[in-house]
Amino acid sequence: SVNGQRLWDSLMEMATIGATDRGGCNRQALTDLDRDGRDLFVRWCREAGCSIDVDAMGNIFARRPGRNPDLPPVLTGSHLDTQPTGGKFDGVYGVLAGLEVLRSLNDAGVETEAPLEVAVWTNEEGARFSPAMIGSGVWSGEFELDYAYSREDKDGRKFGDELARIGYRGETPARARPLTAAFEVHIEQGPILEQEQKQIGVLNGVQGMHWYDLTLTGQPCHAGPSPMTGRRDPFMGLHRILEQLYRLAESHGPWARVTFGDIRVEPGSRNTVPESLTLAVDLRHPEQPVLDAMDRSFREIAAAAADEARLEHSIRDEWRSPAVAFAPQCVAAVRESVAELGYSNMEMFSGAGHDSVYISRVAPTSMIFVPCEKGLSHNEAENAEPADLEAGANVLLHAMLKMAAS
Amino acid sequence: SVNGQRLWDSLMEMATIGATDRGGCNRQALTDLDRDGRDLFVRWCREAGCSIDVDAMGNIFARRPGRNPDLPPVLTGSHLDTQPTGGKFDGVYGVLAGLEVLRSLNDAGVETEAPLEVAVWTNEEGARFSPAMIGSGVWSGEFELDYAYSREDKDGRKFGDELARIGYRGETPARARPLTAAFEVHIEQGPILEQEQKQIGVLNGVQGMHWYDLTLTGQPCHAGPSPMTGRRDPFMGLHRILEQLYRLAESHGPWARVTFGDIRVEPGSRNTVPESLTLAVDLRHPEQPVLDAMDRSFREIAAAAADEARLEHSIRDEWRSPAVAFAPQCVAAVRESVAELGYSNMEMFSGAGHDSVYISRVAPTSMIFVPCEKGLSHNEAENAEPADLEAGANVLLHAMLKMAAS
Ligand SMILES: NC(=O)NCCC(=O)O
Ligand SMILES: NC(=O)NCCC(=O)O
Repeated sequence: SVNGQRLWDSLMEMATIGATDRGGCNRQALTDLDRDGRDLFVRWCREAGCSIDVDAMGNIFARRPGRNPDLPPVLTGSHLDTQPTGGKFDGVYGVLAGLEVLRSLNDAGVETEAPLEVAVWTNEEGARFSPAMIGSGVWSGEFELDYAYSREDKDGRKFGDELARIGYRGETPARARPLTAAFEVHIEQGPILEQEQKQIGVLNGVQGMHWYDLTLTGQPCHAGPSPMTGRRDPFMGLHRILEQLYRLAESHGPWARVTFGDIRVEPGSRNTVPESLTLAVDLRHPEQPVLDAMDRSFREIAAAAADEARLEHSIRDEWRSPAVAFAPQCVAAVRESVAELGYSNMEMFSGAGHDSVYISRVAPTSMIFVPCEKGLSHNEAENAEPADLEAGANVLLHAMLKMAAS
Repeated sequence: SVNGQRLWDSLMEMATIGATDRGGCNRQALTDLDRDGRDLFVRWCREAGCSIDVDAMGNIFARRPGRNPDLPPVLTGSHLDTQPTGGKFDGVYGVLAGLEVLRSLNDAGVETEAPLEVAVWTNEEGARFSPAMIGSGVWSGEFELDYAYSREDKDGRKFGDELARIGYRGETPARARPLTAAFEVHIEQGPILEQEQKQIGVLNGVQGMHWYDLTLTGQPCHAGPSPMTGRRDPFMGLHRILEQLYRLAESHGPWARVTFGDIRVEPGSRNTVPESLTLAVDLRHPEQPVLDAMDRSFREIAAAAADEARLEHSIRDEWRSPAVAFAPQCVAAVRESVAELGYSNMEMFSGAGHDSVYISRVAPTSMIFVPCEKGLSHNEAENAEPADLEAGANVLLHAMLKMAAS
């Protein structure tokens, strides 16, 4: 079993990089702080005897050799980047739990048949550069490398340039290699395990998610002399769309999600009715047919509300990540490991996207969840219990050993 | 009477400075383009034989001497700054009509008893630096100079620094001097004159206007795993507030105005429920007691909607400009001038704030309106008829001569 204290200490040391006043982390993708976090991880991996490879997307692979170099590796990993107001565990836990697995095997002098790898996937959050999970996305063939390099942050800085700037644009092609299996351990980022008082979530899959940019365009005019009735005011369409989309979520049961994370306004002057509003829309549901129905309703709602307020509207599909079912043999490996270790547990799916979504397209994959306090994530107050983090890492260790044949 | 062609030509020449692709102007306060516009105006005034004075707020006064240097001047003027997506006439027309009055008097060899002055007031729009009309506001004693200097644009640049940077931070104290009278001619920026087919609006006053920043604060959380019911999502409060404030405007009759010109979101990440939204709110009504009632309802609506969505809220009073009644002798001078000239006309009030609001606190003041196409303003398509612009300048000429005793 793993060393829970060492895992915790490593998490706390990594959390000093980009630490915020309110106890969280702001270590956004491809910033100087992201580089510092990567450097620390690489140092720790070298100290644990790993070789390091960095690919053209900045994905880092730390490898512990197996007895049989011809066997494809068993991989684990997650991401080190955070939200602008992120926490200390989202992603980082999965990376450092992987490292802790390798350290524990070193301590115990255990060799495996297949090599083991711990991966750091670039820009999982999608906060600085949209879309999310783009490092694992290019690696698994979902996105082209050029598409990824051309993505821009809000200040117009390009992904490819920023990656080179921090020194993590590697030589290895960002392309999937054969894997025996892949696992990822993560905090739940939701309240279910805490509510059900379970220590481990055995993941069956990930819900589907669609991202859009909805733009409403009206006619700018003066806030004072222009009569209300003649206006073509994007805010007059916006409030109806917000209200109806919240009702749409309600009408599709407890698993449907509707989120508006960002809004931009043009020209953004106090005494001018805006010309346009652009709203970031995030729709999710675990069942793809339901999500598809939500997609259709969203388009109808936007069109009708824009019409009623005499606005033009356009919907740009920013990203689609269809619902995922994990590989039965990997889910079974997790399920058996939890049973052996005797942790309370439940089967569940993930509400958040993870790198495992894309990895699962090219290799047998599954995930392990541990509870987080009040289900809070993407929040500086994000918190998790050391005992739960240790339990999750132990399940990871057992599942990896099963697939790597120790 | 004035030379309408020369007035039009000057307007078109000024409009090349900051000209936009869509036929408008983007010549925001204290930018390089604002400086270029000021430089052109100053050159034209010197060519017309005026002396120039620039005060500590960057307000420019071009003076044509009178026979009696002891008499306080009759002043006219407006502003050269524009909205980010502004037009060619808002403000500029009032400045260049004043210049055209002086040029015409020069042509006709007319001397006046009192000196005449044409003023350019700094940052009338309030678009780059809030609040509006701050140049005339400091001059008339409404704001402190330090307050004005400390105002910041969205990039954190300070008003005082930007004013010095463009070379228009003058030595003369920005403080009201005695004036015999003040007039301002402006496009209506609304549709009434066009609808009523009148060429001239005789202004009786300006409606009251209140500016606020409303902030709704919730709890950031992850867009995927977080159940809708547990969320404290600022957008859930926002849509109710928007809807109810539009209804508030409706319930206070055809003159009430509610405008949302800007919105900011924190942290602004697609897959994170925002921590906070800040909405710029602009409420207006010509009758101050009605505006005060709207103010109270706004606070109640915001508090109730925030409560219902389990949000915190705060309202910052950004600016208040109470309803204004113009000086009867100045209104009469305009009314008589229009009658002499035989233009179709109507009495009205202004829906927009103007520098005359603040000037009217320290000197007898009134305004003249001319129609603009479809009532459009704060829009690059803003347009006005040369004949109407000429008519307005003629009314200005006559009204100024009446008060300056030619
Ligand atoms: N875990 C996580 O925050 N992933 C980002 C992708 C998503 O929005 O679900
Ligand atoms: N004329 C004009 O646009 N003034 C700015 C102040 C206001 O918002 O009414």
